[in-house]
Amino acid sequence: MKSFIAAPEVNEIIRLLALAKDIKGSPENYRQFGVNKTLVLLFFNPSLRTRLSTEKAGLNLGMQVISMNADNGWKIEFEEGAIMDGDSAEHVKEAAAVVSQYASIIGIRSFPSLVQRDKDYQEEVISAFVKYASVPVVSLESATRHPLQSFADLLTIEEFKQKDRPKVVLSWAPHPRALPQAVPNSFVEWMRRANVDLVVTHPKGYHLSTDFMGDAYVTTNQNEAFDGADFIYAKNWSSFENYGAILSKDPSWTITAEKMALTSKAKFMHCLPVRRNVIVADEVIDGPDSIVIAQANNRTWAAQAVLYDLLKG
Amino acid sequence: MKSFIAAPEVNEIIRLLALAKDIKGSPENYRQFGVNKTLVLLFFNPSLRTRLSTEKAGLNLGMQVISMNADNGWKIEFEEGAIMDGDSAEHVKEAAAVVSQYASIIGIRSFPSLVQRDKDYQEEVISAFVKYASVPVVSLESATRHPLQSFADLLTIEEFKQKDRPKVVLSWAPHPRALPQAVPNSFVEWMRRANVDLVVTHPKGYHLSTDFMGDAYVTTNQNEAFDGADFIYAKNWSSFENYGAILSKDPSWTITAEKMALTSKAKFMHCLPVRRNVIVADEVIDGPDSIVIAQANNRTWAAQAVLYDLLKG
Amino acid sequence: MKSFIAAPEVNEIIRLLALAKDIKGSPENYRQFGVNKTLVLLFFNPSLRTRLSTEKAGLNLGMQVISMNADNGWKIEFEEGAIMDGDSAEHVKEAAAVVSQYASIIGIRSFPSLVQRDKDYQEEVISAFVKYASVPVVSLESATRHPLQSFADLLTIEEFKQKDRPKVVLSWAPHPRALPQAVPNSFVEWMRRANVDLVVTHPKGYHLSTDFMGDAYVTTNQNEAFDGADFIYAKNWSSFENYGAILSKDPSWTITAEKMALTSKAKFMHCLPVRRNVIVADEVIDGPDSIVIAQANNRTWAAQAVLYDLLKG
Repeated sequence: MKSFIAAPEVNEIIRLLALAKDIKGSPENYRQFGVNKTLVLLFFNPSLRTRLSTEKAGLNLGMQVISMNADNGWKIEFEEGAIMDGDSAEHVKEAAAVVSQYASIIGIRSFPSLVQRDKDYQEEVISAFVKYASVPVVSLESATRHPLQSFADLLTIEEFKQKDRPKVVLSWAPHPRALPQAVPNSFVEWMRRANVDLVVTHPKGYHLSTDFMGDAYVTTNQNEAFDGADFIYAKNWSSFENYGAILSKDPSWTITAEKMALTSKAKFMHCLPVRRNVIVADEVIDGPDSIVIAQANNRTWAAQAVLYDLLKG
Repeated sequence: MKSFIAAPEVNEIIRLLALAKDIKGSPENYRQFGVNKTLVLLFFNPSLRTRLSTEKAGLNLGMQVISMNADNGWKIEFEEGAIMDGDSAEHVKEAAAVVSQYASIIGIRSFPSLVQRDKDYQEEVISAFVKYASVPVVSLESATRHPLQSFADLLTIEEFKQKDRPKVVLSWAPHPRALPQAVPNSFVEWMRRANVDLVVTHPKGYHLSTDFMGDAYVTTNQNEAFDGADFIYAKNWSSFENYGAILSKDPSWTITAEKMALTSKAKFMHCLPVRRNVIVADEVIDGPDSIVIAQANNRTWAAQAVLYDLLKG
Repeated sequence: MKSFIAAPEVNEIIRLLALAKDIKGSPENYRQFGVNKTLVLLFFNPSLRTRLSTEKAGLNLGMQVISMNADNGWKIEFEEGAIMDGDSAEHVKEAAAVVSQYASIIGIRSFPSLVQRDKDYQEEVISAFVKYASVPVVSLESATRHPLQSFADLLTIEEFKQKDRPKVVLSWAPHPRALPQAVPNSFVEWMRRANVDLVVTHPKGYHLSTDFMGDAYVTTNQNEAFDGADFIYAKNWSSFENYGAILSKDPSWTITAEKMALTSKAKFMHCLPVRRNVIVADEVIDGPDSIVIAQANNRTWAAQAVLYDLLKG
């Protein structure tokens, strides 16, 4: 791989999955691989588990790791030919090229505005870093995707599945704030390349971009979706159509024990942080079929596989 | 030890002291002990010497160290069964369990509100992390205690004492702002388990919680307290009774050379940072009996002994 | 060297240059030199490339590296004998002495106020740290100097020069904000000790302090300065005379291809970040004679040579 921004091809995913499993099983075999290499993580937005798991992944490979909060003060210009007499102090051309001088791999987190859809979906920030960096770039969640999360999700499904081709349901759930579509977009993008039966369920007005959805099966009937499911992946997102809007806070979409009873003893997943008793009832997330902590644990191994692969080049 | 939150039992303290002295004398013997282990430090409040000394302690053991400022943006819910449709984005159940996936030891700094005494003294934050984390937790100063400081204080007294059972005086001193009781609480808690004659002196209205004080000797006569003292430990704190209030800024409580002359050539101690010529006169802190810098140095060795012990399990 | 705050003597510079070249050529020979040593970087102002390159330099030597943003909350008192009942929570005497307990080398970044010239040019912050620290101090840019930048600049000129004694031109260029004189001051201070013909050009009212300029040749005719130049070093600064003022935003001082045509195929340099089409036209910085990225790369090797030399003591 050259960079890790979106879902790779199917064969690549199969290879990465095998690698992640091997690293998780025998981390001691990989401790020297990144020695004298530097991982620079730039956070234009806050991060907890992505930062911790990706730093740990780099350190586990023996890399030097440098994290920087770039969320204030460092205003970057993206426009070609701009006359920079305003707020922006540095053009992405220099920013990306300079950080590349100090890094073997650059990680970037940059959230969407949720205001200008076209701009967000053009992925201005991370695309420009990929274009102008001379080293590989890893998305730590961009405007429209969160591939390290999706890779960890797939690894978790692989570990917990009881049948060759499980039924995996992505279910919208209510939330008090407007959230990006990055996690569900990426989840669908990855699941469509995996050996699963994918069903997406959400209220009217919450369909995701067709670029990500393709021909994935969608229903606005949550109960129908849950029927016989092996995995329930809960997530809120704001509207793509009515961009960034909260169209519903309907509590009947909250994942409860009653709804989980419709499934085939499905495992419950969420990328965290999660609003308890809004997204999911305590009884579900505290129950024996909740695998959210194991899922968070896999963030480390997914990131480590990606960093290893990028270093290998 | 399972976690390091309060003062351990006397035997444990004796063992930790011996360990800290050995590490300080022969740090090279401990450099490989923490290899491939990760120390995650979460700061819900600012920190300078606690962060530097604890990071260094972890690095000295060969640990991977990750520090995060968690003082904005990451609002944690502590209430059981809460419907999380407000400001809190993550429940401590997930927060502690998830960070445990990336850490071998978690350090937490969380100051008191100084508004609600019961809430502060219940130690909601650090107790919840201890309860829900699956790895040991170290207090980097909580609402009511600062045990890494007190351990370093005891180590310093051990090094500088000229008699088996020195007289140690904890003296309140004035300060322009309302400060927590964490340092004096912890100091008393540790000194009561140590081989010292402890005297606490403060103006009326400044008594500490009896849970910490036990039967420690207290006097509001600072001169009486200083008589024949071997160590003067200066510290300001706000009122416990009239919770969080500043009842006095009386400059006659400032530690001056005149007052030090009442002692038995006592060493001067303070946890730092210190307000010069408010808490203590320049003549005292700049004088030959000031051991505040040696005391700060011992923060590293105290922290290293604690981390070592927690890793040993 | 004891500390790295200003330009060293000529012989020292020659030695440091040779060292930086050797480290850059054979970094593997230096990887163990800083093992078990700790580099603490304190940033009283924001930093991107200085932080990344200096952290990397320390890590490349095997050092433990701890970076701290000290730009809020940690108010330091510098006045001798101050009664600290105001905002300042810690005196520099303790601050410097305490950080020295945890660090083998301390790096400090502290910008000027651009309001009180005398105070800025007395270098209160970094001088006090040098005075009270018990370990070497490295300037990460102080009120009036940026020596790690200048050292990297000189290393870059050494690498790209085509004749023994190149003509090096420092040219003022316009900028929308008031910037410090630190970079041009340091650049002149270093170039005056190097084997170059130095010319400084700026509009009227922008002369630098004579303490830095000495007898360096100055002209307000930019075209004259550029004639036959081998290196053009562009930089904005605010007025020294009318302290901190922006006296001109004259776009005729922008570095364009037309102006570069006056030179002897000069290389274009800038310390970055740079305002495109304000300081320099796209056609110049994107052209084949722009060496700004190579210059940024040399920040690592310059810093590594300095850290090595300070550790060697």
